[in-house]
Amino acid sequence: MGSAVAPGLPSCESPSFFGRLGASKRVLSYSDCHSPLFPGDQDLLLAAAYVSDAQYNRNVPFETAPQAVRLYYFYNHWTMQAATYFFICVDLSLALFEEPALFPLPLLATSIAEVLCLTAFFGRLVHFAKVTPQMVFWKDTKNICIMVTIVLTLVDLILYGSLDAVNIRSIRWSRPLRPVFLINFPESRQIRRAFRSIRNTLPDILYVFLLFTFSMLVFSLMALKLFGDRRVHSWQFLHCLPRSNTPRVMPAYDFNWWYSLYFITYVIINTYIFMSVFLAVVYNNYRKHLKNEIRKLAYLKRHKMIEAFNILKVKVGPEFVVEEAQWRRLVRTVAPDMSSGHLELLLRISDEGQTGHVDKMNFLRLADLLNIQVVTINIKRHPLEAWVPRVYQSSASLLVQKVVRHRIFVWVFDVIILINAIFIALDEKNPFVSYAEWLFLSLYVIEILLKLYTYEPRAYFGRKQFWNWFDTLIIITALVATVANTTIQSARKYNSQQILDIVLILRILRLLRVIVTVQRFRVIVTTLINIGPTMLTFGGLVFVVYYAFAIVGMEAFHGKVQFFDPNFTTPDALVCGNPALKGSAFSRGRYCKNNFNDLASSFVVLMELTVVNHVLLLADGFALVTHQAAKLYFILFHIVVVILIVNIFIAFILEAFFVAYSLEKSEVETAIEKKIQELGVGIQEEEVQDGKPTDHVDTKDHGDNKRKALEGLYCRIASKKYRTVDALLQWMFESEIAPEDEGPSLDEILNFSPSDMYPKNPNFENSA
Amino acid sequence: MGSAVAPGLPSCESPSFFGRLGASKRVLSYSDCHSPLFPGDQDLLLAAAYVSDAQYNRNVPFETAPQAVRLYYFYNHWTMQAATYFFICVDLSLALFEEPALFPLPLLATSIAEVLCLTAFFGRLVHFAKVTPQMVFWKDTKNICIMVTIVLTLVDLILYGSLDAVNIRSIRWSRPLRPVFLINFPESRQIRRAFRSIRNTLPDILYVFLLFTFSMLVFSLMALKLFGDRRVHSWQFLHCLPRSNTPRVMPAYDFNWWYSLYFITYVIINTYIFMSVFLAVVYNNYRKHLKNEIRKLAYLKRHKMIEAFNILKVKVGPEFVVEEAQWRRLVRTVAPDMSSGHLELLLRISDEGQTGHVDKMNFLRLADLLNIQVVTINIKRHPLEAWVPRVYQSSASLLVQKVVRHRIFVWVFDVIILINAIFIALDEKNPFVSYAEWLFLSLYVIEILLKLYTYEPRAYFGRKQFWNWFDTLIIITALVATVANTTIQSARKYNSQQILDIVLILRILRLLRVIVTVQRFRVIVTTLINIGPTMLTFGGLVFVVYYAFAIVGMEAFHGKVQFFDPNFTTPDALVCGNPALKGSAFSRGRYCKNNFNDLASSFVVLMELTVVNHVLLLADGFALVTHQAAKLYFILFHIVVVILIVNIFIAFILEAFFVAYSLEKSEVETAIEKKIQELGVGIQEEEVQDGKPTDHVDTKDHGDNKRKALEGLYCRIASKKYRTVDALLQWMFESEIAPEDEGPSLDEILNFSPSDMYPKNPNFENSA
Repeated sequence: MGSAVAPGLPSCESPSFFGRLGASKRVLSYSDCHSPLFPGDQDLLLAAAYVSDAQYNRNVPFETAPQAVRLYYFYNHWTMQAATYFFICVDLSLALFEEPALFPLPLLATSIAEVLCLTAFFGRLVHFAKVTPQMVFWKDTKNICIMVTIVLTLVDLILYGSLDAVNIRSIRWSRPLRPVFLINFPESRQIRRAFRSIRNTLPDILYVFLLFTFSMLVFSLMALKLFGDRRVHSWQFLHCLPRSNTPRVMPAYDFNWWYSLYFITYVIINTYIFMSVFLAVVYNNYRKHLKNEIRKLAYLKRHKMIEAFNILKVKVGPEFVVEEAQWRRLVRTVAPDMSSGHLELLLRISDEGQTGHVDKMNFLRLADLLNIQVVTINIKRHPLEAWVPRVYQSSASLLVQKVVRHRIFVWVFDVIILINAIFIALDEKNPFVSYAEWLFLSLYVIEILLKLYTYEPRAYFGRKQFWNWFDTLIIITALVATVANTTIQSARKYNSQQILDIVLILRILRLLRVIVTVQRFRVIVTTLINIGPTMLTFGGLVFVVYYAFAIVGMEAFHGKVQFFDPNFTTPDALVCGNPALKGSAFSRGRYCKNNFNDLASSFVVLMELTVVNHVLLLADGFALVTHQAAKLYFILFHIVVVILIVNIFIAFILEAFFVAYSLEKSEVETAIEKKIQELGVGIQEEEVQDGKPTDHVDTKDHGDNKRKALEGLYCRIASKKYRTVDALLQWMFESEIAPEDEGPSLDEILNFSPSDMYPKNPNFENSA
Repeated sequence: MGSAVAPGLPSCESPSFFGRLGASKRVLSYSDCHSPLFPGDQDLLLAAAYVSDAQYNRNVPFETAPQAVRLYYFYNHWTMQAATYFFICVDLSLALFEEPALFPLPLLATSIAEVLCLTAFFGRLVHFAKVTPQMVFWKDTKNICIMVTIVLTLVDLILYGSLDAVNIRSIRWSRPLRPVFLINFPESRQIRRAFRSIRNTLPDILYVFLLFTFSMLVFSLMALKLFGDRRVHSWQFLHCLPRSNTPRVMPAYDFNWWYSLYFITYVIINTYIFMSVFLAVVYNNYRKHLKNEIRKLAYLKRHKMIEAFNILKVKVGPEFVVEEAQWRRLVRTVAPDMSSGHLELLLRISDEGQTGHVDKMNFLRLADLLNIQVVTINIKRHPLEAWVPRVYQSSASLLVQKVVRHRIFVWVFDVIILINAIFIALDEKNPFVSYAEWLFLSLYVIEILLKLYTYEPRAYFGRKQFWNWFDTLIIITALVATVANTTIQSARKYNSQQILDIVLILRILRLLRVIVTVQRFRVIVTTLINIGPTMLTFGGLVFVVYYAFAIVGMEAFHGKVQFFDPNFTTPDALVCGNPALKGSAFSRGRYCKNNFNDLASSFVVLMELTVVNHVLLLADGFALVTHQAAKLYFILFHIVVVILIVNIFIAFILEAFFVAYSLEKSEVETAIEKKIQELGVGIQEEEVQDGKPTDHVDTKDHGDNKRKALEGLYCRIASKKYRTVDALLQWMFESEIAPEDEGPSLDEILNFSPSDMYPKNPNFENSA
């Protein structure tokens, strides 16, 4: 059952139609409210409807789904999603081929491509309309957005095309709207969420920003009056926009100490204090809305599970339950490729008393149960032990194994890696250094061989043994590359620079290994790796902002600044091909390559503006070649990216670390995980996490009869799955709702607002 | 009873002597654990001992305190504290007069001054030892620190003096230790706390720092190898130390796009991500230790109050109580200048049933009660109404009053101020502009007169009406200065630049008024003003760090770089008087004034290094004139100030805002404040906060008989007092301890650790 990522929450705004539609239609309407964290619950509700249908119409084959459901599945099929993404990519990359182009194509070609894309988007939208109740569809701003953008783009295309036909050059003003397709298609939930974050934060940040502007104006006014006749221009004070302070104003210090003190006060107030206030406001909003969203998701999930239970429930004795057969059919439907051992385990957990049916409480936990990744570990003997038992068990062999398992073995290789690092820094032309590299390589190979000798190879290369894979791949690649290079060198007497570069990067990557052996480092690295995927969301967000700004920049500044080869020293090259830049800091600093002449250049310029601080230098430069208003473009970009996005990014990282720290000492263990441990089939996560699965298995004897049935199956709970901020928060929230709490009504859930979440009187713990 | 700020917490480590000492000695021992937030409780305990002594020995006059207590009061007397601060200032300012001096004095003079200071410090220490139990004194690291520093300084002085006598120049190595006196004398509790913050954070931050260094090394290594032969030096990568990124590496972008992308990745990882992680770690620690400290203080306070109760308690019926007479005597002792109406009010609150005694629960709240500032507001009629009632009550007069009270009146003046701002920016030589300034001034004067006409003048200039005072003072000063300037101008035909500058600053300050009228701005401004005093703590911290670095810098770099007048264009001036700097970025950028030739210059250089980003430029420059090791000095400074102190500063501001936000919607109202409201003698804070106290008073009729007794006294609760982070957190924590909870034992309280505060399973609310 594919990863049916369904449209975002906003489309759930009107749940009133639920009563009026049929069962499968009702189920589909839920799909809009799908939680991406626990894909299980969505599919479970759908599957429950299936199972229920199959039950009532016993003559209908189980596989025959209603038309709407099939259409829905087709909509969510990966090919359709891939096609959508393909067309989005094509549409966005058109900017590479349109004037000002990196690879020029005739207008006709790009226009046809764009129309094709628009058709595809429209088709996708129609398909979505088919599987969504009308009311929901039309109430969803996303759909309206897409439609409006399609219409606008068509209008623009026709206008531009007809004007071009009569040789009038106009502006393709609809191009900055293209990222709308990327944002508003259901698949980009995370980017939309980041945008929501920004939108929610705007009102609050606006006030701080006004205050900040006011403070800056007061300072500028004062500077203008007090130092105005002493060569300092008030525009220079904008240099101190947060995170863009430059030393350019400081030489003024040469002539006046008071000015220097004044400037320092200015920086402290406007950079440190206001930047902190910005961060506080952004973080506060981020946290508030994140928690609200998570609360919403958690209650929705519970609601859906209750709905699924209601579809399947049967009255047995005093209470409603789901029969074992139904339950099995349901799980089989949701997870067709689950091993039967795994299924038995889940049943054992859900139906503890082996009563032949699953009660409501246990049924509600099914989504969580399905989300627990159970890895079957077969504790097998080492192949060598099977082949040559006498040799493998000899005292020398056992000593080797003991040495390899010892902590010092790891440390020794850490030291070797560090020594290796020093050698990397040395000059590689020295023959001694290149021989040493061979020595290091062989040491690493020996290390891997020894480990393979000691540990069971299939366990060593287990699915979750990331660092073992990493190690081995790096060493093998380095070995192959070094050998290849030596061969080429001896045959053709020259070094291949590419291969050498690869070898070098591999060598440096090897250093990463040292980090993982230190526990304290691992916490930080793990958190960073866990939030890695979400950090990519910010990549998407930044891409959207960059794209819009790049298109606008290309329209405004295209061709104004030219880059010449540095060896080319005509007067034109010195002023970046524009006489207006003569003597400016822009041309003196050789910033000519910072131009908007094509999409790639524009992106690089915007990226630079984000991370380094010459925003005002460029603003000055481009204001010279076009108009003073050009400065606005750069200031606006700085505000959007540096004040808003960077702060949200920091807020996100802070939140991730705070959650990680608050969980550091507590045990992340749900009731379900506990039960698996109780059944005696769990392997402690820690033992495996070390990168070296040991043979030791939790063999406490309680529940021995139960274990018999599950012989051969050892479950490793992939509890790392919970270690993303969202999932952790959701887990925490769920563990706080009482199991019998059915939560508020769907209407209420969908209208949760962040402000009614906080208690009237905040308490000491959560206050700060 | 003066503000007896007593030594910090560490001296409370051994409470075991309590049992063995007498009552007053016991009380004194507590004084070390004094909470600076609620000065009441300390004095209360002392006063309880007094009152109790007076009770048992009726023939001893009440005022005769035991010798130890008198010595203790003398120790805490403001003259002694002022003297200590004076000597600390003298000691620290010696650096101005010692070589390399700003104002050179002979060695003998500075040595004598230093010995004098040391004697004073020693005397203060001896005095402290007299009033502190021996065990506590010797266990306190502060005292040991001071003693060791005194001895080291003396040794250094003698060594340096004798070497100087035989003309051997050595180093005064003890000088960087001088801030020890500032930190370790009991009066600098806040600075010590910030230092504790740093110390607590160090272990955690060390790991992040190692990881950061590692990541930087990997990037540098890669850059060295990949771009090394293309003119990029790996040292340049240090340019990207957090918050110090410069565009200096970017011109390299001219020749390689890959390099540019590589550089951007580097900045994103090492600046944004690592800086956020640093902030997360620092903030997490800051919060943890802050809460622990506050928990400690809250329990200590309760402990002291219980102790005081136990001293005074009398058994009445089934329970212990404090008699009304004793209670009155106690309050009179603690607050001799309290009005009798105020005292009656407190008694009414504490002894609600008018039973003639105060029970334990109410007694424990006494410190809080005393901390509530009760302002007696006499609702008087306007003087004009008393003098010329008919005129003042005429319809025209009433209309004027109505207009002035109207919201639009405020808005009109806000608009006028904004128009004024535009005029300030215009050229003041234009006669039209200077006439306009007269117009504005008269408008402001009219505004103040109108307000004084409408509001009761004594209420308008009430104690808490900050903005009214601000307004009036600024306008009057501006009026006087403008008139004075005009007089001078017409008499002597020239403008006094000083007066013009003052007038200008006053005019700009007037703009601040606009902010206060917008509610949303006020929240931010109020929070910033509230944390202002604590921000000064960071000033102290930074001063200490600067001082130590400045002294070291002066020893190392003194005279290496010279500053010449900019008009002086000898070759020496171009290279800052040091040929080693020829052609360096340091001399090219005219950084010659960035030298360590005296204390003032050093401070300015270090301040600049904090706020602007030429740390590596200076490091390079000073490495040229001295030794490569000089770079270490600058890097170390950057790490200490920018990574540690700036992050703690940001953490502090974040915390302040989070507390402010979490309280925004809740009502900060303690049980006591509620009771005052119940008694019907409270004026709502909001009504007064507006800057315009209204005549409306809460006249709900419940408790009318009680009110009769308190006639004429209206209490405004200075609830703003609670609006500092510490006080707010303590208030929150106290409201969570049950009133009957006696808290853990003193031993436990003093050994609270931040780690045992967090619950095993963090909950959703406080997790992040």
